[in-house]
Amino acid sequence: MSTLLSSFTWEELRHRTSAKWRAYAPDVLPMWVAEMDTPLAPAIEEALVSALHRGDTGYADAGALPEAFASYARRSYGWRPEPEPMRLVPDVMRGVVEVVELVTAPGDRVVVHTPAYPPFFSWMRRIGRTVVESPLARGSDGYEVDLDRLERDLASGAEVLLLCNPHNPTGRVFTHEELHHIADLAERHQVRVLVDEIHAPLTFPEARHVPFAMLNSPAAADSVTFVSASKAWNLAGLKAALAVPGSAAQPVVAEIGVEVSMGAGLPGVLASTAAFEHGQGWLDQLRGELDANRRLLGDLLARHLPEVRYDLPQATYLAWLDCRELGLGDDPAAVFHERGRVALSPGPGFGAPGTGFARLNLATAPERITEAVRRMVAAV
Amino acid sequence: MSTLLSSFTWEELRHRTSAKWRAYAPDVLPMWVAEMDTPLAPAIEEALVSALHRGDTGYADAGALPEAFASYARRSYGWRPEPEPMRLVPDVMRGVVEVVELVTAPGDRVVVHTPAYPPFFSWMRRIGRTVVESPLARGSDGYEVDLDRLERDLASGAEVLLLCNPHNPTGRVFTHEELHHIADLAERHQVRVLVDEIHAPLTFPEARHVPFAMLNSPAAADSVTFVSASKAWNLAGLKAALAVPGSAAQPVVAEIGVEVSMGAGLPGVLASTAAFEHGQGWLDQLRGELDANRRLLGDLLARHLPEVRYDLPQATYLAWLDCRELGLGDDPAAVFHERGRVALSPGPGFGAPGTGFARLNLATAPERITEAVRRMVAAV
Ligand SMILES: Cc1ncc(COP(=O)(O)O)c(C=O)c1O
Ligand SMILES: Cc1ncc(COP(=O)(O)O)c(C=O)c1O
Repeated sequence: MSTLLSSFTWEELRHRTSAKWRAYAPDVLPMWVAEMDTPLAPAIEEALVSALHRGDTGYADAGALPEAFASYARRSYGWRPEPEPMRLVPDVMRGVVEVVELVTAPGDRVVVHTPAYPPFFSWMRRIGRTVVESPLARGSDGYEVDLDRLERDLASGAEVLLLCNPHNPTGRVFTHEELHHIADLAERHQVRVLVDEIHAPLTFPEARHVPFAMLNSPAAADSVTFVSASKAWNLAGLKAALAVPGSAAQPVVAEIGVEVSMGAGLPGVLASTAAFEHGQGWLDQLRGELDANRRLLGDLLARHLPEVRYDLPQATYLAWLDCRELGLGDDPAAVFHERGRVALSPGPGFGAPGTGFARLNLATAPERITEAVRRMVAAV
Repeated sequence: MSTLLSSFTWEELRHRTSAKWRAYAPDVLPMWVAEMDTPLAPAIEEALVSALHRGDTGYADAGALPEAFASYARRSYGWRPEPEPMRLVPDVMRGVVEVVELVTAPGDRVVVHTPAYPPFFSWMRRIGRTVVESPLARGSDGYEVDLDRLERDLASGAEVLLLCNPHNPTGRVFTHEELHHIADLAERHQVRVLVDEIHAPLTFPEARHVPFAMLNSPAAADSVTFVSASKAWNLAGLKAALAVPGSAAQPVVAEIGVEVSMGAGLPGVLASTAAFEHGQGWLDQLRGELDANRRLLGDLLARHLPEVRYDLPQATYLAWLDCRELGLGDDPAAVFHERGRVALSPGPGFGAPGTGFARLNLATAPERITEAVRRMVAAV
């Protein structure tokens, strides 16, 4: 079977028009934003080409997407969310922003585990909410939730915990026990949990993704989960995601207006529906390739850049690199870019614990991972 | 040459998955939301299929779109906006909302001419701004700007005039003189003008669209114009539009964050670029067909429903029907739908002057316009 991540040469990929391929000069190897170098899954491409052919490019309707996600969730996690109360949103961030605006007031405090996906900061700032950074701890096995710290942060008058699981950028899949403790704390301090599970389909075999909404807890009933096929099937530019309410959060999600849903992309709806219904085989192959890539990166770093600390991600195609021992300053990605012509995501954008870190995108051909490390070595 | 608007049968169109085709029961003829029954322009379909084939579905970049729009504006109107300060936004409404949030505070007053595109109300309410309805007047030639009324409304402490030109739902293309007076009033009362020109490419030969930004006025320099290929080339579900600053509004538009631009759809960017660069022939044919349709509707109404008043639109494929003499109450569209199985847009959603009105979408095959009128007659 031919590989997905090596389907296209670098030369071919340079013809892409997406942000990943246009933000940097052509000689820079782009290993930053969450886009993969794969072709589309055949079922997705067929659904889209056929929609274009019938001129089906008007305003989006959620159509079969909620039902398709519900079946996927049942098969994948034994989770049985009801399709009817789900709401179509253009993307996960827009969904998060709408719900945060519905359940909080300007100035309210939103807790996030750091390091954190940078738009969590920029969006909360934009809508006048205060981000409270609750750093993950480093245990013997890598990052873990610091429950004492989290309790203090939730107790500080927070209204919302924006929980990202699987976690970007660390690749952690929180355990059932961790999630259970989080739910307890949220309930005790009356904090609403909004859960970003965009990376869940990209969980590797050694971990098990537990949807927060499946917990037996009032916090789970009150939660809203944001899901999308956009990371696992590479559809970020097509614009579709779902807000999935816990049983007690249906009234909140019902308030997401039709004008918000009509901001979604119809190709996103059709592609995501095809992904959840027919994309399992493609996803399984992809995860196999990503599994090899995350190990390859470990081997390359051990050999050529042993100062860089890196835990194998349990999910996602993102590698969170602790570059502090390289002595490249607060933003090693800037040095890799300038001196090595390879673009990683700058760690400081992920909050205070990102100082001295960089994030590398593994969703590319093994040769390009090797080349990226070669360029990082050259920069050091 | 085969026609665009008759390319698909009703049976074929029922396979579309868009809101237009999914919101009503299958026996209801949908003549509501702004979607057309056309196939895509060949250049657009080719650009999109080729992007899908290279897996080019990641986060959007504005790419060649600002330059493509600038050339189109130069050719079409002699307008020469600079491409560099333009910002990509997911759609016109998101762009308007972002800029209103940047230039006003909660509670501030936003003036709109009524009848008005319904999301102007719902979005301004959602972001806590107060809509001031400034009704258009009816002159001997149809709707026109009521300058005295506008002056009073602008003087009432308004911060923004949200000007829609060409105007939905009346189909008016405001004259150079009207625009000039509007600019004067805006300057005098220090009101920022945001201009929605989404329908401009759909102007019929007897009218001339003047971009507000071309006026020689400080209000034009301070204005922000929102443009998109989405109405004229039927791309509403693909999600791309541009915010185009007047020379003095560049700092405001520069504040639209990259996180907003990344909410745009990459297919929207590619399709819009192809439309502005290669879509003129297709658009000319479409306008010819729409021209015939607007006249056909006039003939049909004169014959079968002479109580309905209707001015030929000077632009857009929307017909604004004064149904008050039919005695169907405030919302004739509800009656047409229930009794006639034809879905028009309800007039009351367009503000106070929409009472007793309905809006009909002309972008369909002539047979379906005939069928729509037949159904309206049956309902009466
Ligand atoms: C954790 C996380 N949440 C949200 C997003 C953004 O998703 P969307 O494009 O649907 O807003 C990303 C994208 O990389 C992500 O990693
Ligand atoms: C006047 C007007 N403005 C804005 C829009 C919405 O455009 P968008 O989908 O780009 O937000 C429409 C859609 O019909 C419209 O008629």
